[in-house]
Amino acid sequence: EVVIGGDGYMGVAYGDNGNPIFATTDTSADQVPAGSGNNFSNYSFVYDLDVDFKVSGTSDSGLTFGASGDFDDLGASQGARGWDNSIFISGDFGTLTMGDIDGGAENVIGDLAGVGLSGLGDFNENLFLLGAGAQPAGPVARYDYAISGLTLSLGLSDDAGYNIGAGYATDLFSVGAAYEAVADGATITIFDIDALGSTGSTAITATAPDGASQVIGAASVTFANVTLKGIYGRIDVDGTNIDTVDQYGVSAAAAFGAASVSAYYRAITTDFKTAGTPDNDFEAYGLGVAYDLGGGLALEAGVAQADSDLAADALTVADFGVSIDF
Amino acid sequence: EVVIGGDGYMGVAYGDNGNPIFATTDTSADQVPAGSGNNFSNYSFVYDLDVDFKVSGTSDSGLTFGASGDFDDLGASQGARGWDNSIFISGDFGTLTMGDIDGGAENVIGDLAGVGLSGLGDFNENLFLLGAGAQPAGPVARYDYAISGLTLSLGLSDDAGYNIGAGYATDLFSVGAAYEAVADGATITIFDIDALGSTGSTAITATAPDGASQVIGAASVTFANVTLKGIYGRIDVDGTNIDTVDQYGVSAAAAFGAASVSAYYRAITTDFKTAGTPDNDFEAYGLGVAYDLGGGLALEAGVAQADSDLAADALTVADFGVSIDF
Amino acid sequence: EVVIGGDGYMGVAYGDNGNPIFATTDTSADQVPAGSGNNFSNYSFVYDLDVDFKVSGTSDSGLTFGASGDFDDLGASQGARGWDNSIFISGDFGTLTMGDIDGGAENVIGDLAGVGLSGLGDFNENLFLLGAGAQPAGPVARYDYAISGLTLSLGLSDDAGYNIGAGYATDLFSVGAAYEAVADGATITIFDIDALGSTGSTAITATAPDGASQVIGAASVTFANVTLKGIYGRIDVDGTNIDTVDQYGVSAAAAFGAASVSAYYRAITTDFKTAGTPDNDFEAYGLGVAYDLGGGLALEAGVAQADSDLAADALTVADFGVSIDF
Repeated sequence: EVVIGGDGYMGVAYGDNGNPIFATTDTSADQVPAGSGNNFSNYSFVYDLDVDFKVSGTSDSGLTFGASGDFDDLGASQGARGWDNSIFISGDFGTLTMGDIDGGAENVIGDLAGVGLSGLGDFNENLFLLGAGAQPAGPVARYDYAISGLTLSLGLSDDAGYNIGAGYATDLFSVGAAYEAVADGATITIFDIDALGSTGSTAITATAPDGASQVIGAASVTFANVTLKGIYGRIDVDGTNIDTVDQYGVSAAAAFGAASVSAYYRAITTDFKTAGTPDNDFEAYGLGVAYDLGGGLALEAGVAQADSDLAADALTVADFGVSIDF
Repeated sequence: EVVIGGDGYMGVAYGDNGNPIFATTDTSADQVPAGSGNNFSNYSFVYDLDVDFKVSGTSDSGLTFGASGDFDDLGASQGARGWDNSIFISGDFGTLTMGDIDGGAENVIGDLAGVGLSGLGDFNENLFLLGAGAQPAGPVARYDYAISGLTLSLGLSDDAGYNIGAGYATDLFSVGAAYEAVADGATITIFDIDALGSTGSTAITATAPDGASQVIGAASVTFANVTLKGIYGRIDVDGTNIDTVDQYGVSAAAAFGAASVSAYYRAITTDFKTAGTPDNDFEAYGLGVAYDLGGGLALEAGVAQADSDLAADALTVADFGVSIDF
Repeated sequence: EVVIGGDGYMGVAYGDNGNPIFATTDTSADQVPAGSGNNFSNYSFVYDLDVDFKVSGTSDSGLTFGASGDFDDLGASQGARGWDNSIFISGDFGTLTMGDIDGGAENVIGDLAGVGLSGLGDFNENLFLLGAGAQPAGPVARYDYAISGLTLSLGLSDDAGYNIGAGYATDLFSVGAAYEAVADGATITIFDIDALGSTGSTAITATAPDGASQVIGAASVTFANVTLKGIYGRIDVDGTNIDTVDQYGVSAAAAFGAASVSAYYRAITTDFKTAGTPDNDFEAYGLGVAYDLGGGLALEAGVAQADSDLAADALTVADFGVSIDF
């Protein structure tokens, strides 16, 4: 059985001038810096439309299997080295999933609560070392086993490494911990500061000759329709001038009838081994509200602010509009 | 609810040698000019297949909303700066639509009647200054309000400008008028003569330092299954060596049981300010016939001729085949 | 009516080091040769997911028509020179199909039985001179007529040439013969040895100034759930240093309840006119097994070996995993 669905949004966003997410080919927009030939808008229409599919089936012996994904990703799902979207098979042994999926760490830790119509830079998303990459880096494979609220999750990415996570959840609270190990010589992106609004690329990537690892934990508690969540993770990058990367953050999400609000605070500190190279501190805040109009239609709005020692200026972005779900 | 449908055609087309729409990678085809390494066919199979989706929903308070588009366009619909396909929300306040949609001018003016299986260069389509562009130029937003045969339509494109149209229609006739204004510094394509058959690019584009505008009107009358339509538009491009661009045309479409015929005549005159630069006159004619076989299958044939002072030769193209609609 | 379905697989594959199908962007994988900067895996996750559509309709007079294809191919199906996926119309006159389809030769000759989860290089597929190409080479058109077990099939590819095939099939056996003629000046790929595992490209392509042709025949016999098939073809390339290309092969496929096995042997010999240029001999073997778990789920495994005089080493690849069909 194949079920077709999807979601989308349309609205407007505001951003500081010179923020790359507002770069435009409209030559009537302001140039930042003046005369640079790079045009930026202070505002922009924001728009997104996804159509997705969900396939499910059952074998003669009762194994369940299926696939899911977005139609626009099917091109990258092709061939023996395809990777996008996902396929799963599930039984008493647990669940095996392959494709463009969360690894074992991301599966139990997850992200902080998001804000806004468009995600506003998705600064609520945690850093993980392993994920599905462009071909021919291939898909991620993950094995999950769940019993009585406990989830064990093991992720593998061809040559790049593995991660493992364990979580325990009740209606009232959840805790999770995970470990990621990247193989010697793998290239990882520690932090992509482009999203912060710098016009030049100041992403921190590293080819770690002696590998890299992360230990990360999360906890959440839910009461009176409010969910609080906190995470802390430490990334070690061996054999490079980066010593450690610490990430931590908290979020709150609450629902009051048809209305809901969410907020997060996050920080990432990169500590360099080289004497005289100062730490790079990144901080982000976000606040979002939504109102469910029923039938799949909702009003959503949000604002986010982010700052980094490597970016010239702090960034403020905000958006507002309607989202649809079908 | 998601409804899947689509259309397509298969057939053959004839064109003058050296016409770029008949350029081919088949090295056995004639080279034009001889020895140039550019291969052209005098005939070609023509083929097109679209699969599309239409989504509709209703909120608790009775607002209707939805989305529509082609599956092959979903890649460009992604992300906060996506633009392809479209999303709408509609209520007593009117209808708000965003995506790769007609602006306010195109919505009330439309095109002349088309001909042929493949469109044969689509010379029946009128010129409009504003439309949805490649990312990151983003989507077009349009607001429509309709009451008692009257339609008001306002289109906006991020930084590039706006257009507004008003139309009135009965079963017997329709009239429409629209105004478009492009912001200072916007780049617009006045006329893309590539489609005419020149092997070199002779498109007329302009970055208008002082903006550009168009006034355009259309009228149609329907009697005895025949619809006649006429349009006239004048584009002003400030601060460039182009003075005005005049476009006008007429078309007729008639249905006789399962058979139908259509024809158009169009002309575009570009007037340059520079002394000694002669006007560029473009003219196109088209004639098409179709026969509906029922169930979504039809036979279609057409011929079109176009000529421009900037093209070496006049172009004649013709096609024939079957179209399907599902 | 539009019916949505599809298939996919997930598993693991093993291959000799330095085989391009195991090339990876993972910098932690071995470099072959050492220090070359080209990373290869000895193993790889293999993954593929296709979602497809099948459209069918009937005209008022009883003609049937339709379209079929994969959603990920719809981008190349667009416009007058689209070519991917396919459209057909069928009646007493026979069936006319256009798109990315088998030509008249491939339609009656087919391929040998395949092996493995991912196809393992698809060395079981026969060589044909004509097929649908990238735009603007356009679609292939084919006319088929079938009566009492006899099939006639004529394929045409814009400028590049034509092919014609005739087959006769009963429940017990089938025979088929076909002829392909490529126009003077067409560029054809005789053999693409890249798939064999060489890190440099050693594909044999030829622009045949005086055309090229192939005569190819196939026969199969089925008894006690076992199907044996054999093919032989000879390609003549006029006006180049290639004299003839001979391809031949045999395959066996058998089903035992839910289990099935398949195997093939293939050889391609390229004979050069130039004195002193030795023949290039290519050989491949494959063996596959599958077990149907019901409901569309199956276990599949295979191994293939291939060797060519133009490749440094023989290639061995193997894979194992689950496939889904929905």
